[in-house]
Amino acid sequence: MPSPENRKSLFRPAIDAMSAYVPGEQPKDRRYIKLNTNENPYPPCPAVVGLLRNFDPEALRLYPDPEGCELRGRIAALHGLRPENVLLGNGSDDILNIAVRCFAGEDESIACFKPSYSLYPVLARIQGCSCTQIRLDEASGFSVPEDFIARVSDARLFIACRPNAPTGNSMPRREVERLCGGFKGAVLVDEAYADFSEDNCVDLLPKYPNMIIARTLSKSYSLAGLRLGYALASPEIIDGMMKVKDSYNVGVLVQKIAMAAISDQEYLRGTISRIKNTRAHLSTSLLAKGFKVCPSESNFVFASPPGGDAEGLYLSLKSKGVLVRYFAGEDTGRYVRISVGTDDDIHRLLELI
Amino acid sequence: MPSPENRKSLFRPAIDAMSAYVPGEQPKDRRYIKLNTNENPYPPCPAVVGLLRNFDPEALRLYPDPEGCELRGRIAALHGLRPENVLLGNGSDDILNIAVRCFAGEDESIACFKPSYSLYPVLARIQGCSCTQIRLDEASGFSVPEDFIARVSDARLFIACRPNAPTGNSMPRREVERLCGGFKGAVLVDEAYADFSEDNCVDLLPKYPNMIIARTLSKSYSLAGLRLGYALASPEIIDGMMKVKDSYNVGVLVQKIAMAAISDQEYLRGTISRIKNTRAHLSTSLLAKGFKVCPSESNFVFASPPGGDAEGLYLSLKSKGVLVRYFAGEDTGRYVRISVGTDDDIHRLLELI
Repeated sequence: MPSPENRKSLFRPAIDAMSAYVPGEQPKDRRYIKLNTNENPYPPCPAVVGLLRNFDPEALRLYPDPEGCELRGRIAALHGLRPENVLLGNGSDDILNIAVRCFAGEDESIACFKPSYSLYPVLARIQGCSCTQIRLDEASGFSVPEDFIARVSDARLFIACRPNAPTGNSMPRREVERLCGGFKGAVLVDEAYADFSEDNCVDLLPKYPNMIIARTLSKSYSLAGLRLGYALASPEIIDGMMKVKDSYNVGVLVQKIAMAAISDQEYLRGTISRIKNTRAHLSTSLLAKGFKVCPSESNFVFASPPGGDAEGLYLSLKSKGVLVRYFAGEDTGRYVRISVGTDDDIHRLLELI
Repeated sequence: MPSPENRKSLFRPAIDAMSAYVPGEQPKDRRYIKLNTNENPYPPCPAVVGLLRNFDPEALRLYPDPEGCELRGRIAALHGLRPENVLLGNGSDDILNIAVRCFAGEDESIACFKPSYSLYPVLARIQGCSCTQIRLDEASGFSVPEDFIARVSDARLFIACRPNAPTGNSMPRREVERLCGGFKGAVLVDEAYADFSEDNCVDLLPKYPNMIIARTLSKSYSLAGLRLGYALASPEIIDGMMKVKDSYNVGVLVQKIAMAAISDQEYLRGTISRIKNTRAHLSTSLLAKGFKVCPSESNFVFASPPGGDAEGLYLSLKSKGVLVRYFAGEDTGRYVRISVGTDDDIHRLLELI
C-alpha cells in the first residue's frame, strides 16, 4: 500500500485497493422465483398497508426525530428492555458499519467467522483495519473451533452471525457466553435471522457489558425494502454508537412503518411458522435427494448437491427461472444457499433439482 | 489520546474524545412556528401524495436496487449528466460521510470554512482525521479569505458549503474554480441550498475531475423527513464512493418518492419562488429594524440584532412560540439563523421582534 504522502489517487489507498461488497443479484431481465437474498415470501402485515394508506405526506416536510424515541420505545418493550438500550439503523448493515467505526481504528482489527456474512471483511477494509476470519469446520457442519477466542485476542470487535449466514446454523449459546466473557473487545451478535431460530441471545445482554445484538426488519417482518435495523446493548454502548450514527439515519416514514410492523406480533408468528414448516419440508426433500444439508435455524437452507457441483446447479436453476445463491470459494463452493420461499416456490425448485 | 494498546474503553479513543453532532431542536413540548432547521414550509408536490396512495406495500418485501438505476437516471437527466455521474445517499449527510471516508484516513486531514455546517468537523472526528477550519471574515459579510487554498495544502478533502450555512451567502464561483484547480485533494461543494440561489456549480463538473457536488431533497423539495441526497461527480469518483456506500442505503419507497418529487419541476419552481419572495421581505424588514443581515442565497437569513444579543433574542422568541437557531461562539454568537417560513410565519416573527 503506498504511503499517504505519495498517493497519486484522490482516494485513500485502502479504498483504491478494495473491491466493493457484492449483494445478491436483483435481476431485471426476466421474472424469477427469487430464492437468493433471503427475502420473506409473504407480504408485510396489514398494519403496514393501513399506515401507508393513511400517512400524511406533509409529515415528510420535517426532519425525523433524530433519536427515534417512539420507535425505540416500542422495540425496547418488545424485548423487555429500555429505550436507552436501543439504537436505530438504516438497516442492520448501518448498525454493523457504526460498530466497526466505533471499535476498530486503522491498524487495529476486527474478527469474524468464515464463511459468514461477507460484508464484515468489506466493512473492515473500508475502515482501513484488518479482519481476522476464523474458519468454521465444514466437516462437522460448520461448527466453531474450540480455540477461536485465543486466536482473536488482538481484535477490538468480534462479529458473530447467529444463526450464521450462509450456513444457517447457530453456534451454541455457551460459545457466545464464552466469547463475551473471554474477549476484551466488543462482541456484536448479528441476529438478523434470530426470529427463525429456537433461541436468541437477548437475555444475555445484562450479563455482558461488551455485548451488542443487531436485529433487522428485513427478514422476518418482510421489510427488506424498508431499511430498518437496530442494535440492543447497554446504555453506555448505545450512547457511544449514537455519536457515530448519522443524526437523521432513519426517515419519518420508515419509523412509522416499522412501528406498524412491530405492532402485529401475531402476524409475525404466523409467517415465521409457515417459513419454518416449508424449511423443514425443503431440508427433508433435499436430504432425500442425496444433498448434504446444514441444519437451518434461519430462513434459508445451505445444502451441497450429490457430487458437489453447486455452481452447475445454480446455473441450471437460473436458466430455468429459479434464482438461488452461489458463493464461490473453498469453504462454500460446493453449496448453494436457498432462501425459503412459499410452498409453491419450493415445490417448483424441488421439481427442477 | 491514549495509545490503542492501553485503551481501557471498548471504543476507539477518537470516539470517546468526541461530542456528538447536535442537530437543531425538534421540540415536543408545545407547537412552535419552527424556523430553526431550514425545513420548507410548503408540502411536498402532489405527485408524492399520489405515489403514497398507490404504493403497493408488497414491494417493501424485496431489497431495493442497490445501484438505484432508475432514480439515478432521473437525477442525471435533471442535471444534463449521465447515471454514472450520480450516487444516491441516505440524505446528503450520508454523501458527506462517504466522502470523508473515501478521501481522508487517520493522520490525514480535511478542510472547510468556519462558520459552516457544523457536521463537517464532526465527521472528521469520527473518521479520526483532523479538520482545518478556514475562518470566514465576519466584518466583510463572511467572505472567503484571499489565501485560503495555500493554508489547506495538506488536506485530502475540502468541503465548501455553497450557499453556506449558517451564513446564507455564496462564495464567488471563481473561488470555487480556483479551489478545484489549485487544491490537490477532492473538493466537495455542498449545494444543499443551491435551488434557492442564483447559480450553482454543476456546469463546472466536466472541467474539474476532483470536484463533487452534494445535493439533497430535504430543502427545496420539502422532503427533510424522507432522507434522500445525492452526489454528482465523474464516473471515476462515483465508482470509488460506491464501494464505501452501504449497498442498500436508500430504500424502495424512498427511491419511488424521490422520483415522484423530481418529476414535478414546476411545483418546485413555484415553492422556491414563494420562499425567495418571503426571504426578500424578511431581509428588508430586519434591515429596517436595524439588524445586520447577511445577503442570503438560501432558504434562511442570518442576521444580527441591534446590540448583538442574539441569544437573548432566540430565548425571547422561543418563549413566545417561535423557534429560530442560535449558534454560540465567537463567529456566530451575535447572529440568529431564521429559516424562511410562510408569509404568516414571518409576519408573526416580525411582530415579535
